[in-house]
Amino acid sequence: MTISLHSPLDMHIHFREGDMMRLVAPLSAGPFAGGVIMPNLVPPVDNIARLEAYRAELDEAIAGESFEPYMTLFFRNYSEAELAAAKDKILGIKLYPAGVTTNSEDGVRALEEAAPTLSLMEEMGIPLMVHGETDGFVMDRERDFISTYDLLARRHPKLRITMEHITTRDAVEFLDRYPNVFATVTLQHLVITLDDVAGGLLNPHLFCKPIAKRPEDREALLHAALSAHPKLMFGSDSAPHPRNRKESAGCAAGVFTAPLALPRLAMLFEQHDALGNLQAFVSGNAQAIYGVRPPAKTVELEKSPFEVPSSYGDVVPMYAGQTLDWSIRSIA
Amino acid sequence: MTISLHSPLDMHIHFREGDMMRLVAPLSAGPFAGGVIMPNLVPPVDNIARLEAYRAELDEAIAGESFEPYMTLFFRNYSEAELAAAKDKILGIKLYPAGVTTNSEDGVRALEEAAPTLSLMEEMGIPLMVHGETDGFVMDRERDFISTYDLLARRHPKLRITMEHITTRDAVEFLDRYPNVFATVTLQHLVITLDDVAGGLLNPHLFCKPIAKRPEDREALLHAALSAHPKLMFGSDSAPHPRNRKESAGCAAGVFTAPLALPRLAMLFEQHDALGNLQAFVSGNAQAIYGVRPPAKTVELEKSPFEVPSSYGDVVPMYAGQTLDWSIRSIA
Repeated sequence: MTISLHSPLDMHIHFREGDMMRLVAPLSAGPFAGGVIMPNLVPPVDNIARLEAYRAELDEAIAGESFEPYMTLFFRNYSEAELAAAKDKILGIKLYPAGVTTNSEDGVRALEEAAPTLSLMEEMGIPLMVHGETDGFVMDRERDFISTYDLLARRHPKLRITMEHITTRDAVEFLDRYPNVFATVTLQHLVITLDDVAGGLLNPHLFCKPIAKRPEDREALLHAALSAHPKLMFGSDSAPHPRNRKESAGCAAGVFTAPLALPRLAMLFEQHDALGNLQAFVSGNAQAIYGVRPPAKTVELEKSPFEVPSSYGDVVPMYAGQTLDWSIRSIA
Repeated sequence: MTISLHSPLDMHIHFREGDMMRLVAPLSAGPFAGGVIMPNLVPPVDNIARLEAYRAELDEAIAGESFEPYMTLFFRNYSEAELAAAKDKILGIKLYPAGVTTNSEDGVRALEEAAPTLSLMEEMGIPLMVHGETDGFVMDRERDFISTYDLLARRHPKLRITMEHITTRDAVEFLDRYPNVFATVTLQHLVITLDDVAGGLLNPHLFCKPIAKRPEDREALLHAALSAHPKLMFGSDSAPHPRNRKESAGCAAGVFTAPLALPRLAMLFEQHDALGNLQAFVSGNAQAIYGVRPPAKTVELEKSPFEVPSSYGDVVPMYAGQTLDWSIRSIA
C-alpha cells in the first residue's frame, strides 16, 4: 500500500539555531515542502534584522532542499512601519502569554497591552499564532485560555487566529465558534495521553507543552484530524533538545518528531481508514487557511517497516528504536 | 520555636535490600520510632522464611537504633496456617492490584480471588493495606478505585483497611464512610500537585505513584492532615532510587523524603498554625488505629535552617540542596 502526499506542510516547527539547526532543519526540509518556523529563540526573533539574519542562517542550513520556511515574528507591540516592513517576510506573528512556555518570558503579560498591534495586524492581514495557555494548573491551562481566544476572536473579527498545538476537546469544539479561528495539532497529541508520559515509568521524551491530556481529549483531536476538519492543520511542534536536557533533573519540554511524522501519520490514518483525508490535513487545509503556495514536492509513503533511529545526533526522537509500519519511499 | 514529638511513626516506607537498605534504613531509624516496611521486593516478601530473612537483614542495618520495623507480607492467597504463623511477625498484609505500581506485577488480579484470604484476615484481626489504584487513566486511578474500597469495606466489615498514600479529595471523603477504613498520606502529597511534577520543567524526583493530583485534592489532604483527622496517619512512602533510575528515559516512581520528612512537616504545620496536631498525625493516630506501642523516642525540632543534602549516597531527596525552616535539634 502506498500514498502520495503533495507538498506536505508542517505548520509549527522549532528549528533552533547553530549546530542544532544544522542537525534538525534538514530533517524537516527533506520530507516537507514548507513549514512555519517558531521565533522563540534567545533573544527572540522580534525585529527585522534578527528575522533576516535568522532566515539567512536557515537558508544556509537547508541549502539545496525544496522547502519554504514560513517565518514568524515573536509578538511585541510593533509600530505600523515595523509591521509594513515585516509583512512580506513573515506568515504571521506568534504570541506567547508571559512565562508559560520555553523562552516565552518576553511574551506579553496581558492581551490588553497587545490590542493596538492586534488591530494593526487585523487591518494589514497579518495572522496571529497563539500559544494558548494560562499559568494555572497544568491540566487546565488550555481550557482556561479559551475565554481569551473568545475575546480575541470577537474583538478582532478579521484577524486570522491560529490556536497552536491544541490538546483538548474544548479547543476542538471552539474551532467552530468563530470563522476567524483555526488550529494546529501535533502528532503526539493525536496518539498519546498523560498516561504515556507519566502513567508507567515517567517518559521525559514525551514531555511537552501543552502537556498531553486525557483520553477524551485525544479522541476529539483525533476525530478532527482524521476527518480533515478544514480549520485544523498539522503542526508537529517538533522541538529538539539534547539528551542531557531531557534525561535530567529538570527536563525541558518538547518532543522531536519531524523525521518520522509523515510515516506515523500515514500509519495512524490508515489504521482509521482515513488515508484519503491525510492530504488535506498535512497540506490542503493550511494552503486554504493561509493562502500559501508551497513548492511542488511529492512524498510517496508505503506500508513497509521504518525503524526509527535511537537518536539523531544527540536528539532522541519519539519512537526511538521502535519500528513504524509506514516509511518514506521516495521524495521528488 | 521548638516542638517535641514523641515516638514519631512512618506508616509506609520502602527500605529495599542490600546496599540501598544499608543507606536508607538508618535515615528513617534515626528520627522515627517505628515504621511500616513495604514488602514489594523482587521476589516479594510473601512467605515466612523470606519475611524472617528480610527482618534479619533489616535488624542488622539499623542495629543500635531504637526503631520498631512493623513488617508486612505481600498479599497472595494464604492458608489459615500461614496466617497464624505470620500474625505475630507482621502488622498487616499489603495488597497491590496487579501491575499498577513498582514490583506489583505479582499482585492480585481481582479482589474476588482474594476473598478467602481477606475473610481469614478479618477473623484473625490482621489488617489489610492497599495500593488503591485501577489501571485506568493516571489522574483517575485512585478515584476509580474507591468503589473497590467500598466493596471491601462492606464485605469485610471487621477487616481493618488502610488506603495507602491517598492523593485525592475523593479518598479523603471516603475515609468517613466506614468505621473500618483508614489511610496514610505522604509528605509530598500535602505540598505538591501535578504542577510541581510537570507544570514547569519536568521533575523526575517528584514523580511517584499515585501521581500528585490537582490543587483541590492537595487542599483536602492538607486539611485532613492539619486537623489530625483521627483516621489519617503519616506514611512517607519514602522510596529511594539511584539517580540514574530517576534522571533517565524511563524514570522510576518514588520520592525520597525520609530524612527530611519531620522538619518539613513541622514547617508545614507551623505555617498553618497547626503544630498542636502534629503529634497525632505522626504518631498518635497510628497508635490508636493499629494498637501499636512504639519505643520511646523524643525528637525535638526547632525553627532553624536545615539545608537538605543534594544527595544521600546516590539518592536525590526531595528539596535537594534547598533550605527548610525547621531542623531536628535532638533525638533522645
